[in-house]
Amino acid sequence: MAAASNTRINVTVWHEFRHEKKNPKVAELYPNGMHEAIASALRKSPDLNVRTATLDEPEHGLTKAVVAGTDVFVWWGHMAHKDVADEIVERVYQRVIAGAGLVCLHSGHFSKLFRRLMGTTCDLKWREDPNEREILWVTKSGHPILAGVVDDHFIIDHEEMYGEYFDIPEPDELLLISSFTGGEVFRSGCTWRRGAGKIFYFRPGHETYPTYHNPTVLKIIENGVRWARPEASAAKQTFGNRLMGWVDQKK
Amino acid sequence: MAAASNTRINVTVWHEFRHEKKNPKVAELYPNGMHEAIASALRKSPDLNVRTATLDEPEHGLTKAVVAGTDVFVWWGHMAHKDVADEIVERVYQRVIAGAGLVCLHSGHFSKLFRRLMGTTCDLKWREDPNEREILWVTKSGHPILAGVVDDHFIIDHEEMYGEYFDIPEPDELLLISSFTGGEVFRSGCTWRRGAGKIFYFRPGHETYPTYHNPTVLKIIENGVRWARPEASAAKQTFGNRLMGWVDQKK
Amino acid sequence: MAAASNTRINVTVWHEFRHEKKNPKVAELYPNGMHEAIASALRKSPDLNVRTATLDEPEHGLTKAVVAGTDVFVWWGHMAHKDVADEIVERVYQRVIAGAGLVCLHSGHFSKLFRRLMGTTCDLKWREDPNEREILWVTKSGHPILAGVVDDHFIIDHEEMYGEYFDIPEPDELLLISSFTGGEVFRSGCTWRRGAGKIFYFRPGHETYPTYHNPTVLKIIENGVRWARPEASAAKQTFGNRLMGWVDQKK
Amino acid sequence: MAAASNTRINVTVWHEFRHEKKNPKVAELYPNGMHEAIASALRKSPDLNVRTATLDEPEHGLTKAVVAGTDVFVWWGHMAHKDVADEIVERVYQRVIAGAGLVCLHSGHFSKLFRRLMGTTCDLKWREDPNEREILWVTKSGHPILAGVVDDHFIIDHEEMYGEYFDIPEPDELLLISSFTGGEVFRSGCTWRRGAGKIFYFRPGHETYPTYHNPTVLKIIENGVRWARPEASAAKQTFGNRLMGWVDQKK
Repeated sequence: MAAASNTRINVTVWHEFRHEKKNPKVAELYPNGMHEAIASALRKSPDLNVRTATLDEPEHGLTKAVVAGTDVFVWWGHMAHKDVADEIVERVYQRVIAGAGLVCLHSGHFSKLFRRLMGTTCDLKWREDPNEREILWVTKSGHPILAGVVDDHFIIDHEEMYGEYFDIPEPDELLLISSFTGGEVFRSGCTWRRGAGKIFYFRPGHETYPTYHNPTVLKIIENGVRWARPEASAAKQTFGNRLMGWVDQKK
Repeated sequence: MAAASNTRINVTVWHEFRHEKKNPKVAELYPNGMHEAIASALRKSPDLNVRTATLDEPEHGLTKAVVAGTDVFVWWGHMAHKDVADEIVERVYQRVIAGAGLVCLHSGHFSKLFRRLMGTTCDLKWREDPNEREILWVTKSGHPILAGVVDDHFIIDHEEMYGEYFDIPEPDELLLISSFTGGEVFRSGCTWRRGAGKIFYFRPGHETYPTYHNPTVLKIIENGVRWARPEASAAKQTFGNRLMGWVDQKK
Repeated sequence: MAAASNTRINVTVWHEFRHEKKNPKVAELYPNGMHEAIASALRKSPDLNVRTATLDEPEHGLTKAVVAGTDVFVWWGHMAHKDVADEIVERVYQRVIAGAGLVCLHSGHFSKLFRRLMGTTCDLKWREDPNEREILWVTKSGHPILAGVVDDHFIIDHEEMYGEYFDIPEPDELLLISSFTGGEVFRSGCTWRRGAGKIFYFRPGHETYPTYHNPTVLKIIENGVRWARPEASAAKQTFGNRLMGWVDQKK
Repeated sequence: MAAASNTRINVTVWHEFRHEKKNPKVAELYPNGMHEAIASALRKSPDLNVRTATLDEPEHGLTKAVVAGTDVFVWWGHMAHKDVADEIVERVYQRVIAGAGLVCLHSGHFSKLFRRLMGTTCDLKWREDPNEREILWVTKSGHPILAGVVDDHFIIDHEEMYGEYFDIPEPDELLLISSFTGGEVFRSGCTWRRGAGKIFYFRPGHETYPTYHNPTVLKIIENGVRWARPEASAAKQTFGNRLMGWVDQKK
């Protein structure tokens, strides 16, 4: 898949956008929705062409045209994974396999899309506690997704806990391991390839905390979008029958 | 998942079993079906408790009792992947995720089960040509799946070609790379883990060749079955909510 | 390399054995040395043929005959890595590359042998604090090295902290991640292959704690020894010049 | 390690430069040496600041200043690996561990530098035959090192054969697998990380063939240089002692 655009990266920030409508605490933190907090941060980069899409729009905002025109998806869902239509999941899945990127955030681990791409349950442990602090340790310094993380760790003062065992396939790259106040650990930054597409899972982002106002978190999401973009001149993947002697016929 | 049996490994060799009924050449090579060629080789090992199951049996021979009682599945399918009921695929998938092993053979790469576990298209190049010879090169000497392969390669005089790009997730382990007369290469022995289950993909086995009478091929399948068996005393994977302070309450 | 013995695994537990002579606390915990605590646990298995070797013996107890007769080395060193003669390191290195196993324990991360095999500095963070508790989380349930670890984690009440970044090559398999009271995390169980040899690094084991009397720790070391043993019938790795037409000449 | 320059990538193409002086065939193909063929191709990119260094210069052209000022090394050696001084190898090794990149070409697989970084023998099979053709198959489409390889393979009409088993640690990424006329396969494009440095091994480049005049080969080397460059703002890797309570003292 050639990039949808050679000059800018077309990003679609997809958000469930229901917690904000039901929970005043979330609405206060994210008056325009978490998707707008993320999208407005990304829009500061002139090379990113950012749109948003949400669950309760027609076709969840993911029409054929939108999906075909997207280079990288950012995905946040939680309470309504089951309300995402299978047909739309299939559409986005096919686009990722064909080369689009996916930055899957926090509770998106349980989305139909991520589970389909992983092939596992993606289950984990969790806890909401006001005293929970997350420390994210860098295990692959120099990876482009971590550009700008200048120390070998960073701290989020209040977050939900996610704990191992996290039922995912072995990551191609393990970038971050979190520790939590309660004693758990978690593989918080992981990458995989599926087909021609690149996937980055990034753990932080519970809806009742201001995580998507944290500059380091936003920087890593931005880096992830750039890393996951389709290559402009990637080898085409060809499949199917091929006759003996094809090598010599090329000349 | 504890092993279904502590003393023997319960193996179910699943086979589509349709080519043999339609193509006299296949029937001649495998008069009792490819599944019986494989199963009878495995039955020589007293620690393996081997049964077979085929597509046209009720529930494809994969009843709840059979699936629950299976430690390792061996799977061959080709022309009728679409005829395998989604409900049965789901049943076997859940058993693999819970810890059962899967040895996926040859054209099983396109089965619903394998694709579900991989999360990719599993597409590839192929060619049937009477002059095609496959050389399988060992890239991980000392792996238990390759026990008994005493040279650093082995040759199958006649086989179908499968060629890269093979659209799979990066293998956890790459054991064998094939070269073919026509110039293609293929990752012919690969392992992955999904949930608590172990998966081994092994390329050879086109229905019109006597591949499943080849002692080296049969030995590798047997090794794969042993490697993929559930561990008798594996850590249970626990998920869900966990309260702060659980560490101290354990004492 | 064929196994040095087909019937039993020949294990050499190598130990620096200096802390015990200088620090009464260590001597009290390990009156016969840490190597004897480990070796006596391994000797309970009739299929293991266990000897010990220590730094201050001639040739550090690692004569040519001992090295050639060893299937798996267990290695603990700390204060005297530099006193290990390069020639002896080379001898053991060559044996590992040829197929012997290595179980590298705790501060052995800084040994000449382990660094040579890794190709990196193997540096890390550390802290000795009486309030440090280590929780080791299983990230690959069902791996044979973790057989018998029945919960998804285990706890060591008092241990030295090791913290990321741990400067190692990406492990082939990541089995355990530790969290520490002070907030650090560490990749505590890792495997790699080098040549025909298998390597398992296992973190716990500070000399001032009774870690090598902990049944879970000892069980994992024993599992590691079995996992790292040479395969009895592994493919020989052949190198060097090979003439065109070798395939046809085989017939 | 910060990049030696924020604006351009400082590349040092190191070459043994002895075959050209002894073998007229090599001299005819590369009248200014293979290093100049590579360097002049790289110099077409204004963002690359390219110098060369050769074995018979003082300090092999790798003075402290040159090494400290290099972001990425390109390395070709063959007949004179043993003539490279250990002190210089150590100097370049330390620079790579600290974050510099290394693009290791062809027979550089046996260089002291590459073997030190890998920890293995790096041995392989080989053959020089006028009828040898190499087909390089893409196994990771979309990787930036393969940008511009528009088909899923490319062919080099005449090359030396390298065959498996190639005694290297499992690559972090496997980008290319070659097949040869004689039936061998080889992992021809591999990446690893060591410390903060990135390493790319790229197989083609026998001195008696015009491989380094092949535009695809040169493009992949250029891509490799960009991929291996130090990140400008990577997390610093800190090691050593750290006291309990450091987290709270940060506030």
